[in-house]
Amino acid sequence: MKVSGILYGVGIGPGDPELLTLKAVAILKKADVIAVPKSKEEADSRALSIVEKMVDCKGKEILELILPMTKEKEILAKARKEVAALISEKLKQGKVVACITLGDPLFYSTFSYLIPLVMNALPEVTVKIIPGVSSINAASSAALLPLAEADEKIAVIPSTYEQEGLKEIIRGFDTVVLMKVNRVMDKVLTVLEELALKGKATFVSRAGWPEEMVIRDLDSLKGKELDYFSMVIVKK
Amino acid sequence: MKVSGILYGVGIGPGDPELLTLKAVAILKKADVIAVPKSKEEADSRALSIVEKMVDCKGKEILELILPMTKEKEILAKARKEVAALISEKLKQGKVVACITLGDPLFYSTFSYLIPLVMNALPEVTVKIIPGVSSINAASSAALLPLAEADEKIAVIPSTYEQEGLKEIIRGFDTVVLMKVNRVMDKVLTVLEELALKGKATFVSRAGWPEEMVIRDLDSLKGKELDYFSMVIVKK
Repeated sequence: MKVSGILYGVGIGPGDPELLTLKAVAILKKADVIAVPKSKEEADSRALSIVEKMVDCKGKEILELILPMTKEKEILAKARKEVAALISEKLKQGKVVACITLGDPLFYSTFSYLIPLVMNALPEVTVKIIPGVSSINAASSAALLPLAEADEKIAVIPSTYEQEGLKEIIRGFDTVVLMKVNRVMDKVLTVLEELALKGKATFVSRAGWPEEMVIRDLDSLKGKELDYFSMVIVKK
Repeated sequence: MKVSGILYGVGIGPGDPELLTLKAVAILKKADVIAVPKSKEEADSRALSIVEKMVDCKGKEILELILPMTKEKEILAKARKEVAALISEKLKQGKVVACITLGDPLFYSTFSYLIPLVMNALPEVTVKIIPGVSSINAASSAALLPLAEADEKIAVIPSTYEQEGLKEIIRGFDTVVLMKVNRVMDKVLTVLEELALKGKATFVSRAGWPEEMVIRDLDSLKGKELDYFSMVIVKK
């Protein structure tokens, strides 16, 4: 079915409203619907509050997309299908839907799961992605730490990865960005100690947010409760 | 020496002027000096022409930083030192200097080499980085291809890397971004064929530029002259 609506995936950057792109602002201004993925647990969407600082959302429909944080595949699949149906419904009505994502829409985001579901339901729909400043670039800026130069190699990995694999990757790359370190910091510290690389590692949380933290003495993080939006950059 | 000037490294995004961030525009507007790294060979700076589309540069000093494209370390070191001295001079005069970089200033950029040189010359100077949308996020958007989801691992590597190492990395990661493929496309094709992954690879050049190309049939690129700003994303 040919539909006149357009679906935009809009990256709104790492957290600083000023790091929205001109294009993101322009798309959000013209959008009829702002779609906001969120987990059931949180009351407010940080992404939406960032957008509201830069774009007048009065008169726009805010479409909440509830995607629970769970590993249970059936619950997830059902939630995604329902959410994709909500978006498709708006598109069929000819509406311009902008689905917002912190960082970049195709870099560890929930939005990327929704694209094939919407495209399956509406094969002829137009989907466009507005890339955003990703969290790893924001963290590297906050720490004044180049991610890569010249012929260097970068690995970006979730820290939930098992210990031996983690070591091997750190050995093989010039820069390793460990995402989602909050729950596994002690394991990461052990690995870095064993590789004698603790001095080459920097912890960054909420880069670009008012609460931004850059910590170069990783030992000071031992046993502490860490923010969900945190990573470690290892640069040899 | 305490200096009142400020050095900004400003990421201007992948090429589309609309992908400048609000913050980049604000810094460029207030800057006294726009520093523009360029190789001797090219007559015009693409980065500057992008900035000029969004920011009125009349009355601002344009400081060209000539950094030749060469592997000769002595020539490079000398050029970088001279260029850092030019920047430091402006900072000593109390000027706000914005050094512009395509993409992100700390992601495979020339600017990152200049930071320590300027900071050595002026230890108390303020250096701030404004992150930008990087080429890999722009390419992933152009190709509608998520770089990573959930617990996936990403490797970003220059394709000049030797064949066996390339294979090993492609085997070990969910997504591999091969930068600078223009001169080694035939080698990359051979590697992908041997791994039976050619169908999982997408070529993107000049993402976000008017000349943007997304090519999914990699065989069509065999023997062709390719753009300098091109990459291949392998997503398994």
